[in-house]
Amino acid sequence: MDSPVTTAVLAAARAAKDAQPALARLHRGAKDQLLRAMAEALVERAEEIVAANARDLATADAAGMAPGLRDRLALDVERVATIAEQLRDAAALPDPIGEVIRGSVLDNGLELREVRVPMGVIGMVYEARPNVTVDAAGLALKAGSAVVLRGGSAALHSNTALIGVLREVLAAHGLPADLIVGIDEHGRDGVDVLMRARGLVDVLIPRGGAGLIHRVVEHSQVPVIETGTGKTHVLVDASVDLEQAVDIVANAKLQRIGVCNALETLLVHRDIAPQALPRIAVPLAEAGVRLHADERAAALLPSGLDVVPATGADWDTEYLALELAVAVVDDIDAALDHIRAHSTGHTESILTRDLSSQQRFLAEVDSAVVMANASTRFSDGGEFGFGAEIGISTQKLHARGPMGLREITASKWLVVGQGHVRP
Amino acid sequence: MDSPVTTAVLAAARAAKDAQPALARLHRGAKDQLLRAMAEALVERAEEIVAANARDLATADAAGMAPGLRDRLALDVERVATIAEQLRDAAALPDPIGEVIRGSVLDNGLELREVRVPMGVIGMVYEARPNVTVDAAGLALKAGSAVVLRGGSAALHSNTALIGVLREVLAAHGLPADLIVGIDEHGRDGVDVLMRARGLVDVLIPRGGAGLIHRVVEHSQVPVIETGTGKTHVLVDASVDLEQAVDIVANAKLQRIGVCNALETLLVHRDIAPQALPRIAVPLAEAGVRLHADERAAALLPSGLDVVPATGADWDTEYLALELAVAVVDDIDAALDHIRAHSTGHTESILTRDLSSQQRFLAEVDSAVVMANASTRFSDGGEFGFGAEIGISTQKLHARGPMGLREITASKWLVVGQGHVRP
Repeated sequence: MDSPVTTAVLAAARAAKDAQPALARLHRGAKDQLLRAMAEALVERAEEIVAANARDLATADAAGMAPGLRDRLALDVERVATIAEQLRDAAALPDPIGEVIRGSVLDNGLELREVRVPMGVIGMVYEARPNVTVDAAGLALKAGSAVVLRGGSAALHSNTALIGVLREVLAAHGLPADLIVGIDEHGRDGVDVLMRARGLVDVLIPRGGAGLIHRVVEHSQVPVIETGTGKTHVLVDASVDLEQAVDIVANAKLQRIGVCNALETLLVHRDIAPQALPRIAVPLAEAGVRLHADERAAALLPSGLDVVPATGADWDTEYLALELAVAVVDDIDAALDHIRAHSTGHTESILTRDLSSQQRFLAEVDSAVVMANASTRFSDGGEFGFGAEIGISTQKLHARGPMGLREITASKWLVVGQGHVRP
Repeated sequence: MDSPVTTAVLAAARAAKDAQPALARLHRGAKDQLLRAMAEALVERAEEIVAANARDLATADAAGMAPGLRDRLALDVERVATIAEQLRDAAALPDPIGEVIRGSVLDNGLELREVRVPMGVIGMVYEARPNVTVDAAGLALKAGSAVVLRGGSAALHSNTALIGVLREVLAAHGLPADLIVGIDEHGRDGVDVLMRARGLVDVLIPRGGAGLIHRVVEHSQVPVIETGTGKTHVLVDASVDLEQAVDIVANAKLQRIGVCNALETLLVHRDIAPQALPRIAVPLAEAGVRLHADERAAALLPSGLDVVPATGADWDTEYLALELAVAVVDDIDAALDHIRAHSTGHTESILTRDLSSQQRFLAEVDSAVVMANASTRFSDGGEFGFGAEIGISTQKLHARGPMGLREITASKWLVVGQGHVRP
């Protein structure tokens, strides 16, 4: 006998699957109109949403939620307007559906086309950030897919209010409300059921902390796109524009701290380390960064900085904080070995003036995004010009790197004959 | 404590992963030379391979293996030559690696390119067909990936001999032999370990019967590409060229019986059924096809044919045999509903002269390959012009439909700046 949660979550996923064909029949104009109407409805009903959010915040405060998490949970009328704006942005993006990806006429006259189609049902599992609820729903709808949403339990009332508004707009447009379903009320057990909903859910996208992502990746029977964890490296090569290197490292580490494309390990070529390390350390020290340095790096860092000896764990830690692992490497081979051993395959960048170093780094580093002479902070769907981002894939299957609308679609082959049989 | 099988299979996967960068550095000429040398070595050492195969056949005969399976297992010198030819064919294919998939220069001057790169390590799990061992190894190498091979235990000696020859050629070319590793000796437990080898194996491709595929899909923590099962439908629309329909249905059902793109369910529009069904049934009856007909279809079929009443299970059975489910449908909506409920998402075809029927069918059927006026037997990598086929994906993630070289690659993003920092 299935548990009530199993029954409820499978019913929700099936409802989304059954609703999706009605969305697949809409062309761009109708989808964009829907997204704009949703934006309008959110703004109109912002106070109701903020009131629901206040209930979540009260629970969070009683439980002593950390300030950073509380801030990501909190809504006011202005933030609701910003969230609504995400839907208008999605409406402004080109429709990925219908694109002819490739095509030809075969020798025998069969016409062959690979076309972009909706994924079907997308499951999103994320943490207590109500803006993700609306963002994911909007992007999924634009890409022709129904969506099953599981945000953190801490955002239950906020998500319920937001999803309620979006579902009412769907119904008012003559569409099935089940194009957007929330399963927050079923807690963690609901996620377990969702991970087993093969045949109902076409892809699961976990978005959030490493623990959440790891759990989904390990246990899901539904295909998963792994996102997120970024143990990001910058290599300062022997031949480097030092002024640029100082700026890029500071930008990569400090421009935004708690994000997956922020710098986590700095590797410095030994030939430049005596000049480079002291200069690079200054802006980092000023910002309060603690340096976890290997012996050779520590010996080159000026005294008075917050320097601690790097332990083995430092080479594999995504700090998401004012901390940075620093090592001196003998040459580009040693740097490539270090990255091969410790990278999470997210983003790495070389800073160099040497063509051969740049070529080798771009060719040999096996990460989603490999850069030269640029800050790792550019590893982002918005920066790439995708107009939206649903996450950054660190797996090789299906999508790699920043994922926009195109990355949450599938394709199918159309074959048109005139009575063709196979000889 | 890990079991000896766990230790051995993880070591094999890690060896493949460590070997792969050496292959990734090769350009097309070197890879093609390697494949041709492997073909030559297989031909030279055919008798040794046939002798190993004889040991497998002796075991198979003692166990009373079914003739069809025995035939797929059996090798002679001629068949080894055919297998070697697959490697020469792979050498003749264009190299998928290095293709620039898309690229642009961003507003800020950053140069952005998405390029095609090797997947890394591909795990193949398949049944006792020694030709698949060589075919999979050749295609993986051409696509820049190392491969971990697990064929059926019944082919243990054949696979060991084939893999041994290929590894010797690798070593003779100064490459790590571990670019091709076999784990047949570890039996089914080896597959279980392979399915948990996240971080060592980038993708698992099961190829074979529904049971095998189901098991891998359910239990793998490594990303999987689901292949195979084809509950394939043909719809004969009211407005149809009947002569064409007779030929196409016969071709789809009979041209090759035991394959995933063979026809399994025939749907006939009620307005044409009285004329169409008797005519279509004749060539099928002559070939010995048993028809599992619903009531309306049965009433229209001439007496004297092998007709049995369809049960509920027939609409979901992939016969891979001289059997066909037949139903009369009221209209295209009923046909689309039937397909939505029972298709495995492999291949469906409409036979029609009506433009609107064709448009609706192509747009609304959510399968890997959707056809009009062509035999489902064209759903094949060779027919699509891919030059090779590693399987047919029935999932939406990563690859859908016939998979050639391109479908077993990944991509990465290259970003080249000139000191760019994010404002």
